[in-house]
Parts: sequence; C-alpha cells; structure tokens
Amino acid sequence: MARIALLPAGSVSHEAAVHLLGDKHELVHYKLISDVFTSTANGDTDYSVIPIENTIEGSVNLHMDWLVHEVDLPIQAEWVYPSIQNIVGRKQEIQGDWTTVKRVLSHPVAMAQCTQFLRKYLPHAEQEHVSSTSEAIRMVKNHSEEGWVAIGTRLGAATHQLDVLEPNVTDHDNNFTRFILVGQSPVTSAVESAAKTTMLVTLPEDFPGALHQVLAAFSWRRINLSRIESRPTKRQLGSYYFYIDVELSLDSILLPSAIEEIEALGCQVRVLGSYPSYSSKSWALEQPHNLEV
Amino acid sequence: MARIALLPAGSVSHEAAVHLLGDKHELVHYKLISDVFTSTANGDTDYSVIPIENTIEGSVNLHMDWLVHEVDLPIQAEWVYPSIQNIVGRKQEIQGDWTTVKRVLSHPVAMAQCTQFLRKYLPHAEQEHVSSTSEAIRMVKNHSEEGWVAIGTRLGAATHQLDVLEPNVTDHDNNFTRFILVGQSPVTSAVESAAKTTMLVTLPEDFPGALHQVLAAFSWRRINLSRIESRPTKRQLGSYYFYIDVELSLDSILLPSAIEEIEALGCQVRVLGSYPSYSSKSWALEQPHNLEV
Repeated sequence: MARIALLPAGSVSHEAAVHLLGDKHELVHYKLISDVFTSTANGDTDYSVIPIENTIEGSVNLHMDWLVHEVDLPIQAEWVYPSIQNIVGRKQEIQGDWTTVKRVLSHPVAMAQCTQFLRKYLPHAEQEHVSSTSEAIRMVKNHSEEGWVAIGTRLGAATHQLDVLEPNVTDHDNNFTRFILVGQSPVTSAVESAAKTTMLVTLPEDFPGALHQVLAAFSWRRINLSRIESRPTKRQLGSYYFYIDVELSLDSILLPSAIEEIEALGCQVRVLGSYPSYSSKSWALEQPHNLEV
Repeated sequence: MARIALLPAGSVSHEAAVHLLGDKHELVHYKLISDVFTSTANGDTDYSVIPIENTIEGSVNLHMDWLVHEVDLPIQAEWVYPSIQNIVGRKQEIQGDWTTVKRVLSHPVAMAQCTQFLRKYLPHAEQEHVSSTSEAIRMVKNHSEEGWVAIGTRLGAATHQLDVLEPNVTDHDNNFTRFILVGQSPVTSAVESAAKTTMLVTLPEDFPGALHQVLAAFSWRRINLSRIESRPTKRQLGSYYFYIDVELSLDSILLPSAIEEIEALGCQVRVLGSYPSYSSKSWALEQPHNLEV
C-alpha cells in the first residue's frame, strides 16, 4: 500500500487517481497542488497525482515549473481521464424540475464547459464561481434546500452524499485531462502501455536554428516526439528551455545516443522521467486499473 | 475610444489593461473568459484582453484553444505585466497587527505564490480559496470587521475602497503574465516594440521528423522562434498542431516565403496574428502606455 498525495476528495484528480490506482492505497488530500508536491518531496507521501494538461484544477505551466524548479521527483506514470461534469444536488429537493434551481455553483472553467446545458435548462439560475468543483459540491450540501446545485464529478457527489441529477452535461465529449504520477519508485502494471520519456532541454544560447539542431538528433533516428513546449527559464527574459516528450524508453539504445548528441551541441538535458503511458483505449473506464505501486 | 472586454474589475487583467491602454477607453468586465471572447466576436466590444501565459486567471491552453476553435479574432498586440499580489483589507480594522487577522481569502494559485509571507506573518489565519483575487477582495469588503483579508491586486483594493495593508507579498519577483489584445483592427503606438507573428501549423500526418522539416524552413532563413508548443487537435488522439511564435512581422520578405515552404511540405498554416510585442523594459510600470486603438 502506498500513500498518494492529491487534490481534495471529489476532484477530477481524485476520480482519475482511483481509476489508475484502485482503492487499495491511502489517499491523502491537500487543498493546494504545491502542498501535494511538497508532501511527496518530504517523504510524507510516496507519490503525487498531478494534472498537467487540459486541466480545470490549476495552472498547467505552473505544475510543470514546480516539477522543474521546486522538487526533484521523477515521473513514474502518465494517464488520461475524461473531464465528465455532472449536475449535482439533492434529488428530493429538485424533483426533476429545473425551474426550482436558484443557483449553480462551480469552478469557472467547469461552468464554461457546460454552457449549452446551462443555457437550455438553467437560464434562470444565478451562476456562482468557486475555487473548485469539489468546493462547489461541498457548499451545495449545506444549501440544497435553497435550490442550489453544483457542477462537478460523480465521485464528488458520492463523497458528499449528494445525487447526480443529470450525468455528463459537458458540451463536448472529447475533454480529457492528462495526469502524471510522480515519486521515487517505479510502478509496474500488467496493462498495455506505451513507453514515454520527458526531457528538459536548455539551449546554450538564444541563437536561430538551435532548436532545429536538437530536433535533428531525434529526426534522423526516427524518434517520434509527442510533445514539445518552450518555457522561459525565469533566469533572464528571452532565455528558454523546452519540454520534449518522446515515445521511447530511456532503456532503448536510440534515446541515450540522441541525448548524447544533443549534449555535444552544448545543450543541457535533464530527464524528468521515463515511464509507462496509459492511453484511454488500453483500459475500460468502468474498471479501476489497480496499478502496482 | 474603444470598447475593451476583460475579466472583472480589480483582476490582474484589469491592471494590465489599464497599463497598456490608459484610462481613455470603455472597459467592459465579464466574469468568464469565454464571455470576454464572445463579446468581441459578436461586435459588442472592439477588443478582448486575454491572459495567455503564467496566469492565475484561468487555463492558458484553454484560452489559446478558444482563439483557434471558437472565434476568429486576430492578435493585435502582446505585452507582459508583473503578477504583484498584496494583502488587502481595511486598515482601521487590522491596525498593523497581523494577529488580528482571522481569515485570508484568495485564488489558490495567488495564495500559493505568497507562501513565505503567509507562513511568517499569518500562520494562525484560516485560508479560504475563492474563484479569483477580485472575488476575494469583494468578499473581504463585507467582512473586514471580522478580521478577513484578501490577497489581490492594488487596483482591486482601490476598486472596492479597501487598503493595501502590505504591498508585494509574492515569494518571487519574476512572476510575469503575458497578455494579448485580440480584435479586428490593428493598433498603433509610439512606444518601441518588437514584431511578432503567431502561427498555427498542422502537420499532414503523425510521421517522425515532420516538425524537424517545418523548423528547417525557419532555421536556414535565420528566423528566430520565441515559442513553440504542441497541442492535440481534438480530432483524433495522437494528432497535433503547433503554436509557433516568430520574431518577425508578416510584412517581412522572409516570413511569407518560409510559410510557403511549409505549406509545400503538406502542412496547413494559419496566421493567428502579426503584431507589436511590448516588453517590460520598453515602458515604465508606473506610467500607462496609452496605446492608440
């Protein structure tokens, strides 16, 4: 059994963590993503669950920057989980009649993802923005008799003993959030996964074509990049580093030689993790994955 | 005089907008960034102010995706503004005695940026997360006699007739937010600026080395990239497009020929804007810039 640090009970992070890890681990919830990271860095927990793409739970760039500047925790796994939002409240109060709803609470981005449903069924309801979907559900629990409902996760509803009044009210079905699991020990799993390595490449100086030379090292080896992103180094304006994800394990022969070549160009390369990546296709959403950690 | 759509009064967006545009325009505030975009797309306003990097005001990727998928508004200017957070409250209640503070309200990310100050001076105070720094200040206004304070902007304090109890309590000085101004008409300015062009490049298929070929078109012309970022197209998993910023105007000779070459490779190129970029060095923070729009 591992101790897993993550955002509050009922958050998308919580649903995604249960989905990857099953229910056999001890989940330790924190309000702030910085506290999540810190607990694992200090050894209070074994792993952190961090939303890193398409997320309504904080700033993506900030999370990656923490991983680079504040803590030294390798990425051990990656997975995607759908952002499914639901109308959450108390069935006995609302009774299937949307006109009785006075107020809808949620995180601003979650609310923006459900614009069509809100326009069609709840145009009369007042919209109130709170800091997270789990906070919205927590607040609705104490005010359900006043016609309050929340937009949030199914697990959030269960956590606070509320009902899902309408499932999946998001405008688009293709909202996925990407999560990473960071910690000191590798994970194992019987489920099919793709290999992935995340690197931080700092160019020696800001000269035209430097990035092109770095990518050539991958290109002629036919190594596929699945993400590239430039970020300011914060040391000086106009100085950048790059996150690069490649679809290859560090154990392969090709990748270490590509890294050597990039370092020979005068670049610094820091490997942030070499890990299994679980796609949404490789496992059923209904079934927790029970990753061994 | 132009009509400018932006996030609520007292937000970082508001401070940054006043800084770029001065006070001669009509500012129209919206709670949601989607409503900001929509108002300009519908012609209700002339420009939108959109935070796009290092932001505590919503999801950066989401804002860029809106620009690509939901509206067709060219970028007309870009500027950076420091994220300076302050302790905001009512001086007569707190009287310079931090032990009288019972509760600190702010956006979770703004609060995380002020960890050191909070640990040192307000360890006894309860922390409450709300949806934005301006909302935090609005709430403190009605509860200042109960020992509530907010973390937020100087302009937010002024907007709600509250005092800055302690200026600049952020842990690091190098927190800048990047903003863009989107709308149909170009802007003019006497202030020194750099030229920038933002493009969306979609690769013909997911083959290794395609991105490398795209970058070669910039590299041999010695065109400098200032940002590159891959994003899923949302059409299918594993299909990507790239945001690319180059430090060159579309009026230059080099850039259109680079774009032609990239299109000849089978890529789609969409120019999201070719515009002046104002760095933090080119103008004093104390003085509004009064951009002509």
